[in-house]
Formats: sequence, C-alpha cells, structure tokens
Amino acid sequence: MAIKSGNIDPVKLTDFTTRSLIKVGIPEEDARITAKILVATDLRGIDSHGVPHLANFYIKFVQDGRVNPKPDTKIFSNAPATAVMDGDRGLGFVVGYRAMHEAIRRAKEVGAGFVSVRNSSHFGAGGNYAMMALEHDMIGISMTEGGKGMVAPGTVGRNTGINVISVAIPAGEEAPFVLDMATTVVANGKVEITMREGKMMPEGWAIGPDGKSITDPKKYYEQGGALLPLGGAPQTGGFKGFGLAITADILCRVLSAAAATDQMAGEHFFGALRIDGFQPALEFKKRMDELVRAHRSLTKAPGVERLYTPGEIEQEIEKRRKSEGIPLHPSVVASLKQLAQELGIEYNL
Amino acid sequence: MAIKSGNIDPVKLTDFTTRSLIKVGIPEEDARITAKILVATDLRGIDSHGVPHLANFYIKFVQDGRVNPKPDTKIFSNAPATAVMDGDRGLGFVVGYRAMHEAIRRAKEVGAGFVSVRNSSHFGAGGNYAMMALEHDMIGISMTEGGKGMVAPGTVGRNTGINVISVAIPAGEEAPFVLDMATTVVANGKVEITMREGKMMPEGWAIGPDGKSITDPKKYYEQGGALLPLGGAPQTGGFKGFGLAITADILCRVLSAAAATDQMAGEHFFGALRIDGFQPALEFKKRMDELVRAHRSLTKAPGVERLYTPGEIEQEIEKRRKSEGIPLHPSVVASLKQLAQELGIEYNL
Repeated sequence: MAIKSGNIDPVKLTDFTTRSLIKVGIPEEDARITAKILVATDLRGIDSHGVPHLANFYIKFVQDGRVNPKPDTKIFSNAPATAVMDGDRGLGFVVGYRAMHEAIRRAKEVGAGFVSVRNSSHFGAGGNYAMMALEHDMIGISMTEGGKGMVAPGTVGRNTGINVISVAIPAGEEAPFVLDMATTVVANGKVEITMREGKMMPEGWAIGPDGKSITDPKKYYEQGGALLPLGGAPQTGGFKGFGLAITADILCRVLSAAAATDQMAGEHFFGALRIDGFQPALEFKKRMDELVRAHRSLTKAPGVERLYTPGEIEQEIEKRRKSEGIPLHPSVVASLKQLAQELGIEYNL
Repeated sequence: MAIKSGNIDPVKLTDFTTRSLIKVGIPEEDARITAKILVATDLRGIDSHGVPHLANFYIKFVQDGRVNPKPDTKIFSNAPATAVMDGDRGLGFVVGYRAMHEAIRRAKEVGAGFVSVRNSSHFGAGGNYAMMALEHDMIGISMTEGGKGMVAPGTVGRNTGINVISVAIPAGEEAPFVLDMATTVVANGKVEITMREGKMMPEGWAIGPDGKSITDPKKYYEQGGALLPLGGAPQTGGFKGFGLAITADILCRVLSAAAATDQMAGEHFFGALRIDGFQPALEFKKRMDELVRAHRSLTKAPGVERLYTPGEIEQEIEKRRKSEGIPLHPSVVASLKQLAQELGIEYNL
C-alpha cells in the first residue's frame, strides 16, 4: 500500500466514517456496516453515492430525526423463499444489509430468496447489496425507490420514481458482472456533475415542465426539470424505461405494503438465486469467463481501445484505489473536516 | 359474439392452428397449447408474434427437422426453488409452457420458482409465459434469447442478442401490469413493419456495419444493419440496454449450461413469485389498482388523451378482438389458405 499524495487511505476513511456514525448514535456494528458500504462505493468509482453524501445526507438524517439510529427491523413471511421487512425508519445501509442477508439465508435453504422492504431510507448505491450475493456463489438483485424525478411518457412534470435496478453475477477469473442502473436516461448525479463542471447536458436527458428539452443544468434546477425514462422519447423506447421503473416500484413499494406517506427512497427489493440450484457453480463461473472474453473480442468501433462488460471498469478502479487511495474532491474533504469539528471527533485523513 | 366482416373468429383460428400442428406431427395436447398461445398473441394486438408466423416459422421448423415434434423434456434441480430444463429441441411454445408451469409449481411450494431452459426453440411473444402466473396470484417473469441483432456499445456489427424481458403482475379491477420488451430500442418486427409500409425508420433505431445511422429499412436489410440497445448511444444510456441484454443472456444461456452451438432463440428463463408469500394477494391487488389509477390521473402532455400503464392497451385490444374477431393482414390469410392446401386440412376461417 502506497497511498498517492492527495488521495485518502480507504482504511482510514472507513474508520473515520464509522466513528462519525457512532458519534450520532448508530450502534458500532451498524456503523461499521454502513462505513464499509459507503467506502466500497467510492473505491469502485461511484463518487456520487459514497462518502461525499455522509455529512449532508446520512449524518444529517439521523441528527434531524428522519432516520431512527437503532431500528427494530421486523420480518413477515408466509413462504420459505419470500419475506417483507419493516425497516423501522432505519438507515438504508443497515436495513438493506439485513434484508439482503435475509434473502441470501433463504436462498441457501431453498435456492431463492426475496425480501421486499418498507419503511427504510436512502441506501446509497444499489449495486453494493446485489454484490453481497457474489461470495455465496449466488446471483444478487437489488432495487430501490429513487424519488420522483422521472417524467412518464405522455405526461409533464416530475411524477415517477428514478428507481434503480441492480444485478450482480459472479464470474471466475474475470470481474463479476454488475449492472447498476437508474431507469432514467441518466441518474440524478450526472446532472449534478454536469452542473458542477459548468457544462451543458446532451439532448435527450431532460425536459422542462413545458415538455421542451433542457440542456442547461442550471435551467433544469430552476425550472424543475424532469429526467426522461431510459429510451427517451416514446418512438425510441421511452415506455420501456418507464415500464422498468414501474416494475421496481411494484416490487419495492406495492409488494412491501408501504404506506403512501413513506419518505423518499424508503422502499427496496432484494433477491438472491443460488447458482448450484441450477448447475455446479464452478462450471457456471467458467462459462461467465467465456462470456466476458467473447464480448471483449468483438470487433471494436474506430477509436475504441477496449470493450468492457458491466462491472469491469468498476473493478479496475477498485484495484487501483485500494492501493493508491481514493481521490476525494477537495469540497468533500472539506465537508469531512467540518464534520469532524462539528461532531468533536478526531480528523485523521 | 358478432365477428366483424373480414375479421377472423379467434375460436376458429385456434381450431385451425391446432389442426395444422397436429398434421405435422405435434401431439394433440401440445398442439392445443401452442395454438392457444399463438392466438392469444394476436388477440392482444402483438401481430408480429402470433399466427402470422405459423406457416413460415413453426410449421416449417417442424417439417425441416429443426424442431422435434415430440420432445422428451427433462428437469434437473438441486434446490426446491430452482431448476434447469432441457427442451430436447421441442417447439418453444411447448417447452416454455412446461417450464413456466414448473416455475409456478415450485413457487406454490416454497414461494418462488425459477427455471432456466436450454435446447428449446422460438417461443413467440414472451409476455404469454409471464402472464401464466397471473391466475395463480403470482408475479411472472420470462426472458428469452432473441438472436444476434444488437450492436454492443463501442462495437460494429450484429454481435449481441435482441433478448427479451417480460414481467406480468396481477391487479384487481384494473388490467394486469404486463411489460414485454426487447432490450433493443425496438424489436426486429418494427423494422419489418416499417419496411412493409414503405416508411423510413426514425433516427436512433439502427446503424450499419460502418457505424453510421440507417433510417431506410431496405438499406438496413441490404447492408446488414444492427439495432441499437435500449438507450441508444452511450451518452443516453445505451450501455444499460446492453446490460439488460447480457443479464437475460446469462439467465437464459449461461445458467442453463446451453451448448455454444444451440440454435437461435433456443434458451429461455422463467420465474414466478407467490404474492401471498409477501402479503395477502387481495390487498396487493387493491394496491395495484391504486397504482394504475394514480398513473392514469397524472398531468397529461398537450394532445395526449389517455395514459396507459403497460398491459392496458393490450387488454383493451383483447376485449375488442374477442368479440369482433382478429383483423389478420390479407397476406397472412393467404398464407393460412396455402398452408391448408399444402397440409391437406380443411380451411374453415
């Protein structure tokens, strides 16, 4: 390990994050689970969903009482493979971790396990939970409500969830397949990044309340713009992205019998499928390697150097950041310093 | 029932289709199952996947030996919720029907059932199998390989499956939610229809082997064009449609341990989730009605008369066609007349 100058040591970052969460009342084990998931997100290069949101999202939600630091999560089940979890307004990371474990436990017993979760809160990047299945040689699935930011086909305004669907599937020597996608053309974070960098958005990401295209991120926020569903306009398949959003909505919110008044992003859905319920896991993983390699050897378009299956780029970034550290944005480092001061904990990054 | 002049009576069409399949050697029960699925597809307005393909696809496949008329399908399983089916080169409708039943049977027992299928053949519209779960108050899932017709992001040529994902979820008084989508911007059938009507395709559907946009369907076929993944270009989320295609590829082909040489569209994946494993089905269906009605009451864009949740339009068409009959294209009627002559069966439509 030789952390690059200016970068943050992931081990220290995990420790710092854990201590900050404990300080606001999260029990130690739950704080460790949350810190591990947050830092894992930054390690994989998903900078929009990790530690940058620690101070202004998760710590704040606990401090202002929106999130219950010590949730008494409950399981209701009427079949070996299926269950509903009530998250008791807990931190989404803690509730999500417990629910995905429950899905995996059930898959160990009968081959498949599914848990629909209500009364939780924002759980960061969905891929983390799907990936919990990998070490058990299982296929993992994770979905979440994402708050209303999509405009449904044929409508105007923000009226449909930017719901997220994640799938993780183990491979052998190659990187696991990890698909982690908002059902909109892009995730909200991409608009934020475009704004921060002072750039314009491409056509096809967003429309205003008047139904007209918006490419200026400032106007997007000022006018209350909405993101188009994956596929964009109806003639290029926008109803498919919308249909995927509604599918996630049903599995997260309707299947968990969530109250209509639940807070944003408070419902999730988790699933696990045991691979050796279908065929020996070792053989499956060899076949996955073949699939990844076959894709890599396709004819590349001019100017393309390397083809990636979903999950490969994130694994490369993870390897690099584990040894060189995480290049947190200066504004994020500043937010962590300020957090340390406010909470009265040691700043050691 | 008052069949409109020029339309085809669905009961007679089912009888005719059954007799034609029996004539080429399909056992009576399997012929009835296949005919019912084919006509159900036409009833729901999915004209690209029903009886129009009877003569030149399914009957031909049996006649030329590609499809085994009497498959000895086999189940391999190592867990109560999961199984692999070998379709013994049977008709996709027969194999799909058996495999989805197997998934439903397992879901009855343990709450969830999943069956990955190899060595099958083209099974028509995927939504039919997902919808088999509805009458059991289950959520149904169906996926299939669709043959290489997608161009993966960063590549050129037809190199990735136009794989299909279907989900069916029961409602109470409202239409069931049915999402039935190719993972490309549009299904292949849409290009065929554009060609037949002498129209041009919109930008964003297809590119040629040179990577340049194709809007003329004639050029699409002449040059060997490929369909873009749902989302289109990488900057508007094309890697998501590609990721969904690969997910279906893994669940259908890798999970079933299919041989690399299997024929096109010969692998499927089926799933069923029992709703009362999560909550009472009646309450769930009331909540589904609320979801559909909430969507219907969103603010409509100018010129939009009515909003539809996926599955609603198809149900409306089905109601109409059940009483008024199916408006088969004259060329399809001609193909059925010719088929009757060739097979030496009575033409009664």
